[in-house]
Amino acid sequence: MHTITATDFLNDFRTMSTFGATTGGGVDRQAATDSDAQVRLWFQAWLEEHGFQVHFDAIGNQFGLLEFSPDAPYILAGSHMDSQPLAGRFDGSYGVLAAAHAALQIKEECERSGEIPPCNLAVVNWFNEEGSRFTPSMMGSGVFTGKLDLEAAYNAQDLSGTRVKDELERHGFLGDFEMPAPTSYAEIHVEQGRGMEDSHVTIGLVAETWGAKKFEVTVRGDQAHTGSTLLKDRRDALFGAAIIIAELRRYAESRTGAPLQASVSTMEVLPNSPVTVARQVTMNLDLRSPDWETLEAAFKAVKEIIEGAEREAKVEVDLDVTHEWKLSPYTPAGVELAAQVASELGVRYQRVQTVAGHDSTNMKEITPTIMLFVPSVKGISHNEAELTKDEDMLAGVEMLTQTLQHLVQGTLA
Amino acid sequence: MHTITATDFLNDFRTMSTFGATTGGGVDRQAATDSDAQVRLWFQAWLEEHGFQVHFDAIGNQFGLLEFSPDAPYILAGSHMDSQPLAGRFDGSYGVLAAAHAALQIKEECERSGEIPPCNLAVVNWFNEEGSRFTPSMMGSGVFTGKLDLEAAYNAQDLSGTRVKDELERHGFLGDFEMPAPTSYAEIHVEQGRGMEDSHVTIGLVAETWGAKKFEVTVRGDQAHTGSTLLKDRRDALFGAAIIIAELRRYAESRTGAPLQASVSTMEVLPNSPVTVARQVTMNLDLRSPDWETLEAAFKAVKEIIEGAEREAKVEVDLDVTHEWKLSPYTPAGVELAAQVASELGVRYQRVQTVAGHDSTNMKEITPTIMLFVPSVKGISHNEAELTKDEDMLAGVEMLTQTLQHLVQGTLA
Repeated sequence: MHTITATDFLNDFRTMSTFGATTGGGVDRQAATDSDAQVRLWFQAWLEEHGFQVHFDAIGNQFGLLEFSPDAPYILAGSHMDSQPLAGRFDGSYGVLAAAHAALQIKEECERSGEIPPCNLAVVNWFNEEGSRFTPSMMGSGVFTGKLDLEAAYNAQDLSGTRVKDELERHGFLGDFEMPAPTSYAEIHVEQGRGMEDSHVTIGLVAETWGAKKFEVTVRGDQAHTGSTLLKDRRDALFGAAIIIAELRRYAESRTGAPLQASVSTMEVLPNSPVTVARQVTMNLDLRSPDWETLEAAFKAVKEIIEGAEREAKVEVDLDVTHEWKLSPYTPAGVELAAQVASELGVRYQRVQTVAGHDSTNMKEITPTIMLFVPSVKGISHNEAELTKDEDMLAGVEMLTQTLQHLVQGTLA
Repeated sequence: MHTITATDFLNDFRTMSTFGATTGGGVDRQAATDSDAQVRLWFQAWLEEHGFQVHFDAIGNQFGLLEFSPDAPYILAGSHMDSQPLAGRFDGSYGVLAAAHAALQIKEECERSGEIPPCNLAVVNWFNEEGSRFTPSMMGSGVFTGKLDLEAAYNAQDLSGTRVKDELERHGFLGDFEMPAPTSYAEIHVEQGRGMEDSHVTIGLVAETWGAKKFEVTVRGDQAHTGSTLLKDRRDALFGAAIIIAELRRYAESRTGAPLQASVSTMEVLPNSPVTVARQVTMNLDLRSPDWETLEAAFKAVKEIIEGAEREAKVEVDLDVTHEWKLSPYTPAGVELAAQVASELGVRYQRVQTVAGHDSTNMKEITPTIMLFVPSVKGISHNEAELTKDEDMLAGVEMLTQTLQHLVQGTLA
């Protein structure tokens, strides 16, 4: 019988990366698009071929179960295979495939030794982690952990008005499986920053997730003729929005002290006509920092920037908080366990923080959770040029395998 | 027999304004939408009821002909009934209805007197003057005057990918009529600025159209994660675009000397995702001035602003000229004739310039053209709150009627 190898992992990774592949070496696999459906069907076949039982739950999370003994509790490991538009092939997908290979290695080890572990093992491909097509992000894990209402998720629409529920149904991913709550969860992901590369470490043990404040900004002006309406008579929503975007970035870059990330990346302009001054602009505004005081100070600065924009562009601005959370720790015993495993494996590791949200950010609220990182070359993320080296991917699979070996023994339960 | 009256005009104007009416008192009648089709069918019925022969040409221009004698040359008068999104009910539509009522008055006068004028008379509702759904603007008059290629116009697509030709066909406006080149053209329109209101005049005689330079601006950055990518590593296309928009407006407002209008009003952001830094922003950039030196200086300033944005946001910017023209006179003899008519009528008038483009801007290149304005309250334009007072509308109809009386005598031919 064939035993799963590192070469198998790299081959499977290359196959997986062909679904929704882009000419720039990345993937475009937004949630519940045809390419997302294709990679899920491929993964289903892979799981079934290797002895996993595959089920979908009501929000389209894809589970592959290895039942070692009936009625034993489950350990869960995974990530997501959906992507941003024109994104890298590692983000999320690497973690799902790593979990599947790690689980398979454990199954093969059990079959060799004849030993039955106290916990069963399942892998998961969470639905719509990215949130680019359907908001909010981390949708599948949000519904699974009870943070997000199922009906609200079903009714989320993309820009063409297509609903989540209809797309899940169309692809056959609207299931009725109820995955038992796992007694612990593990996830491995690419870092998406360059801290680990700069420190020359192979494995990051995520100890905390940064705090964040996320907003929807609505700039309200008035339509006018771009030719005949005097500048002083205009209430130009796009001018107001531009001031906010430019000044926010300059504020964030001019600061010293705790790190702060500040971004605006979406914009809807009404009426978006070449000869009509914009009456309304809607945009996101995203602040992230490990330090809550820094976020509060940034919030205050944003309000001042907005007041300046209101005066200069003669517009009115609504600033609505959509999400906020403080610096939040991962399970300390999980970080300890991962440190012990990394030590035993002799890999270079360090404790890190995550700026990006992950499905594990939801999972750690309901179960002991271990989050691991492997390095991203130059920290490039949400970009076709995203890269994690083969040897780092393989070190991560080994690290996750050994971690799961502990978890199926009930170590964190 | 009923003789057409001022009351009829105001009643017809109110009826016309119900097609595509918005709750804010305006209309939303973008080119070749259902509401544009409805107002055209209503206008067709009105024309036929009053003895006009109605024809559509290959680009969907709607003509209503009054043939006084076979083989006589035609005088043409009109404007457009399509609108910007959420626009006013006067822009364009007033001019088409004014032309129809003026023509009908002349027909009735001929019937009373038994006199047959040397020229025939036609009114026109040009297709897609606004250009908000399908670019370029002034499409119908552009094709009619040979400035725009018919096939290029047919293939223009809206944001959903629908083509002009298919929409014209769907509504039955794809005709094969070939309107003879008129020996002169007249158009009346609301001013869309507040110069005439400030000067307390009722009739504007448009002597010149401002020069303009219009651009497409493409800002190219690189996708990155809005959380984990350091600010100094970002090449944020939306930040670059924001700098350009804000600095352009500040430059235009800080100037002295000849007037300058500067606007950005459309924007497409890619990938427009809440967690991905924008890789590309495409936007328009619109400069208008009566003074060519001022436009050249503004063009130079735009290039400097762009260089600053490229440095600060680490982006690359393409600036492509899409349209440009210098200050351009209307037929001087036409302005003289209109001044004589206004004098005889005893209305307050003045020579004005137009900042906005009009179908007459195309027509004056091929035939002697008279362009008239009536005042816009507070200069509000491309806005549901656009308003021209009843008495000003009626003064305009009277002014256009008397002007056309001269034109059908062959005065400008």
